[in-house]
Amino acid sequence: MTTPTRRELANAIRFLAIDAVQAANSGHPGMPMGMADIAEVLWNDYLRCNPANPGWADRDRFILSNGHGSMLQYALLHLSGYDLSIDDLKQFRQLESKTPGHPENFMTPGVETTTGPLGQGLANAVGFALAEKLLAQRFNRDGHDIVDHRTWVFLGDGCLMEGISHEVASLAGTWGLHKLVAFWDDNHISIDGNTDGWFTDDTPKRFEAYGWNVVRGVDGHDAVEIKTAIETALKSTDKPTLICCRTTIGFGSPNKAGKESSHGAPLGKDEIALTREALGWAHDAFAIPDDIYAGWRARDRAVAEAEWNTRFAAYKAAYPDAAAEFERRLSGALPATFAADAQAFVDKVQAEGATIASRKASQNAIEAYAPLLPELVGGSADLAHSNLTLWKGSKSVAGKDPDANYIYSGVREFGMTAIGNGLALHGGFIPYDATFLVFSDYARNAVRMSALMDVRAIHVYTHDSIGLGEDGPTHQPIEHLASLRYIPNNDVWRPCDAVESAVAWKFAIERADGPSCLIFSRQNLPHQSRDAQQVANINRGGYVLKDSAGAPEVILIATGSEVGLAMQAAAQLGDAVRVVSMPCSDVFDRQDAAYREAVLPKACRKRVAIEAGVSDFWRKYVGLDGAVVGIDSFGASAPADKLFPHFGFTVENVVAVAKAL
Amino acid sequence: MTTPTRRELANAIRFLAIDAVQAANSGHPGMPMGMADIAEVLWNDYLRCNPANPGWADRDRFILSNGHGSMLQYALLHLSGYDLSIDDLKQFRQLESKTPGHPENFMTPGVETTTGPLGQGLANAVGFALAEKLLAQRFNRDGHDIVDHRTWVFLGDGCLMEGISHEVASLAGTWGLHKLVAFWDDNHISIDGNTDGWFTDDTPKRFEAYGWNVVRGVDGHDAVEIKTAIETALKSTDKPTLICCRTTIGFGSPNKAGKESSHGAPLGKDEIALTREALGWAHDAFAIPDDIYAGWRARDRAVAEAEWNTRFAAYKAAYPDAAAEFERRLSGALPATFAADAQAFVDKVQAEGATIASRKASQNAIEAYAPLLPELVGGSADLAHSNLTLWKGSKSVAGKDPDANYIYSGVREFGMTAIGNGLALHGGFIPYDATFLVFSDYARNAVRMSALMDVRAIHVYTHDSIGLGEDGPTHQPIEHLASLRYIPNNDVWRPCDAVESAVAWKFAIERADGPSCLIFSRQNLPHQSRDAQQVANINRGGYVLKDSAGAPEVILIATGSEVGLAMQAAAQLGDAVRVVSMPCSDVFDRQDAAYREAVLPKACRKRVAIEAGVSDFWRKYVGLDGAVVGIDSFGASAPADKLFPHFGFTVENVVAVAKAL
Repeated sequence: MTTPTRRELANAIRFLAIDAVQAANSGHPGMPMGMADIAEVLWNDYLRCNPANPGWADRDRFILSNGHGSMLQYALLHLSGYDLSIDDLKQFRQLESKTPGHPENFMTPGVETTTGPLGQGLANAVGFALAEKLLAQRFNRDGHDIVDHRTWVFLGDGCLMEGISHEVASLAGTWGLHKLVAFWDDNHISIDGNTDGWFTDDTPKRFEAYGWNVVRGVDGHDAVEIKTAIETALKSTDKPTLICCRTTIGFGSPNKAGKESSHGAPLGKDEIALTREALGWAHDAFAIPDDIYAGWRARDRAVAEAEWNTRFAAYKAAYPDAAAEFERRLSGALPATFAADAQAFVDKVQAEGATIASRKASQNAIEAYAPLLPELVGGSADLAHSNLTLWKGSKSVAGKDPDANYIYSGVREFGMTAIGNGLALHGGFIPYDATFLVFSDYARNAVRMSALMDVRAIHVYTHDSIGLGEDGPTHQPIEHLASLRYIPNNDVWRPCDAVESAVAWKFAIERADGPSCLIFSRQNLPHQSRDAQQVANINRGGYVLKDSAGAPEVILIATGSEVGLAMQAAAQLGDAVRVVSMPCSDVFDRQDAAYREAVLPKACRKRVAIEAGVSDFWRKYVGLDGAVVGIDSFGASAPADKLFPHFGFTVENVVAVAKAL
Repeated sequence: MTTPTRRELANAIRFLAIDAVQAANSGHPGMPMGMADIAEVLWNDYLRCNPANPGWADRDRFILSNGHGSMLQYALLHLSGYDLSIDDLKQFRQLESKTPGHPENFMTPGVETTTGPLGQGLANAVGFALAEKLLAQRFNRDGHDIVDHRTWVFLGDGCLMEGISHEVASLAGTWGLHKLVAFWDDNHISIDGNTDGWFTDDTPKRFEAYGWNVVRGVDGHDAVEIKTAIETALKSTDKPTLICCRTTIGFGSPNKAGKESSHGAPLGKDEIALTREALGWAHDAFAIPDDIYAGWRARDRAVAEAEWNTRFAAYKAAYPDAAAEFERRLSGALPATFAADAQAFVDKVQAEGATIASRKASQNAIEAYAPLLPELVGGSADLAHSNLTLWKGSKSVAGKDPDANYIYSGVREFGMTAIGNGLALHGGFIPYDATFLVFSDYARNAVRMSALMDVRAIHVYTHDSIGLGEDGPTHQPIEHLASLRYIPNNDVWRPCDAVESAVAWKFAIERADGPSCLIFSRQNLPHQSRDAQQVANINRGGYVLKDSAGAPEVILIATGSEVGLAMQAAAQLGDAVRVVSMPCSDVFDRQDAAYREAVLPKACRKRVAIEAGVSDFWRKYVGLDGAVVGIDSFGASAPADKLFPHFGFTVENVVAVAKAL
């Protein structure tokens, strides 16, 4: 067996990518071919991970922000010994395989995050690197650096063109995330061709403007230059590093290298044969010679974790409480007493019966829960005093405080949200973020990614309707509640008072397998009376808040600020009317049929839904025979007490609509 | 009457803002107070506009990207003589007033675009400046510069933190939009306080990296420095200019200047009194002395247009055809023959009966319509060969070609869309943009702004469902169709074949008062037979594609790729089944009740909706008694022909669902 050259080791990546894409007749060979040499150096000489234990807490994180080059990552995972077989690679892009079209954290061991939507991988990486910094600040002790790993991210021109790259690179610079290293695949090609026509930024200068350490002009096909650049990055003590790697997309393909034709389609049989010849790769598709495997596995990757285990044992001996807390944090388990303590808070809020804005109730809930949950880290996109996300224990993550927990994101909704996804995926954190509901639009695809990745992230959106008043239609959400509810696996809560607000926060914190959007009002909302069963039923997403005498003739269904209106209307409509509060339709829809029937009996078709948002969403509950009091146009600038009547949100109108049925 | 100082002229802005916010008990005084001196110099010494004719074609455009400072703009419009009275200013933020909370182009003469959602005003401004460049290239002749105006934009730290600022500043640099001048309100304060904790970019360096001309370190309260900076900007022949103005937010307020407390709330009675004293402004609220009015109106603003009218008359004499075309373009009227020519194309497509992907049908429609419409300008966010937006006559706007019409946006969905809004608002253009449907998320708030501003913009979204196949769930839209439909005033078309695709494009082009989203498939869709009436009925958004013998017992409602499936299922279900194609539910909902009843008779409750997206949207048509074949989870990575059966989109399943009713 001969010792393969670095280029030969890299070529194994190239041909696995080429051949898998060809077999699938779909995919992106160009990027893996272009970045193979960089990946080979990084993975064989630097990346600290243990293929036998992808969940090792102190592993380096590797993130492929240019996720269309997924075969690069799959090839790396396979070659370095992760549980991803050559047969898995042959199933590239097939239904339910471990090798989907883009990397998916829930499908493949060793994939840290789901990428493909450009720029978000970089944002996640900033979140991973922030997680490392915060855990290190909190848990490391003199002589015990149990948290000490790097975040490495690959990115392409597309990621750098996306606006989110600006938002998160700026924050990474401000936070001085020096263990974050990004490799820019500077190949001058994007899907539409040579980037001269649409991407002329001086990217190194731009990143210097963010306070990054920039390594310019690295030949991305020269292992020595790549190593030198990485060594420079490792020396940075206060800045993240961007390594600018000049590469050739589709490297090795005689006719497609350097061209967009290698980007997103199989090379084709003939060109593959020519590429084999050009690169001197005489092996069949998916046939990796033993010496290549041996080269990839020459380094004992398990040793890093083994050494860490020893160190962690010493830490545990010296600081048993901190070690136990570290293990709890990384496991995702809540503190043992959280559920009871939080329920006690809910009960207290019900007993107090305060009439306050639900955003204020949200802040009270944070004030109650955050001291119990050091893993709760988040903040607002420059609306702290409007979203009411600050609490007494808030300490900025920009500093070095071990209790740092508050993220001043600036006006960067998308970046904030995607960074939160990274924090959650890293482990050890429950992230929350906040902005006005209307600006959830800016963050929308990151909310979707929270849901797709089953991430426990909490998205706090205040100023939830025309009720925000004078700021006008640019700031008044109309379609947002419905649109967020339609994201699969995303729970949307719109509480009607302080009690539902406290329950919504508790539910979102306890929900381990997906995100929640918590929607709060700017204006005061009246407290609703409830018995203990009704308080418990808030956890079912929808429940009878005021029942009819006997079977209901009319059911009023409402959320948030419109529940109080429904209760007033019901009082005028008389005993035959039931009021259902529906703070979270997603959770209600997950209840068993018997419960749903008990709340909304099929026999009663005279149903009126009331919500200051698009009406059609509610047809799922009121059908063709019911009615909806909603808003299907944009709002307007005026005081809230003028707007609600203007748009028909009055007791008189609700009564009239109900009577018309 | 004394001649007021510049500071006194600026103070008129300050106190109109202070007093209007106080009267409304809501609003943002800090920015107008901080930028008043800059605005005064710009408006009195440079801005070419005619208050008596806000629609003058060659006026300079002024855009307030930090739109929360709306009172600055209202004060400027009032003081310089626009149709905005002191009584209008007293109605600041009141229902249906001409002075809403944020500037709204449809409410106030002289307001060019609606701002508030941060960063988008800058993006619109790039669109305005691009419009000027393109019109100048197309219409100017030697000695006849009938298009020669500037775009001035005010922006704050918030705009610069937003990712969209990166996207559009990059494009403005690449395109060399030298008539674009941005004033950065560099006050070191955002809502959460001093920006040191979250905004540490070297912004001048960043903009130099985009190829901008940057004027650093201007004292934003010194009229001489401001003038010098503007003179520097006027000399730029190939780069946009950023003027970095160091300002004090809330300038003049003894206790709130330089603090976030002046940003978003009234100063309060006592502080206002102190500010009057500090700035020597002895006048009552809303009382502007005559000498101040005289100072603001010393310059004859009408002269610029009068001079232009003379020049345009000469142009018209020399180039009557070009002048007529210029006037047509700016009026927004389509060419007289467009409707007939486009209808002939629709009829030809119906006659040809091709089975092609609707994205290909879209390209064919562009190929047919674009030669008729020089105002049609657009492109794709780096997916030209996937979205199929290029046509034979495409010429990049990056160059100097008089026929330039194609925008290579790079991977910048949000910026692309907001730039399109600017193009449309400028006048003379019908913009279109394109990306994959799933990435409409990235652009979502700009789509909303198209709709809010009644802009004729065409958003082309291809790869419309799981039908895109192997790219997997990150790229497969689920909730997007419904979510886009819920944006008020936004038409969403999802055509089922080449004919509906041709009609959708025609309809979107002819729709003058709002945007349209055109949703196309990656995969081939079978042609549907239609008689002439059915072809005409496509324009009604929904229509009977295959009727039942007699009154329908079952109605299948479908869109896009699912229409073919519905037709196959109907063939198996027999004569009692009607198939309704619903390419645009928004348009269908605008039809009169009789037409809607004719298509979906109330008596028939056995309705099945079929669409490869969230099912609940369709409850508005099928109610509680019908059924929906939809997708309520994320997609998966696999070939499309595996995915459709996997998610229940088979003839067998549709037949079974229909029979179960």
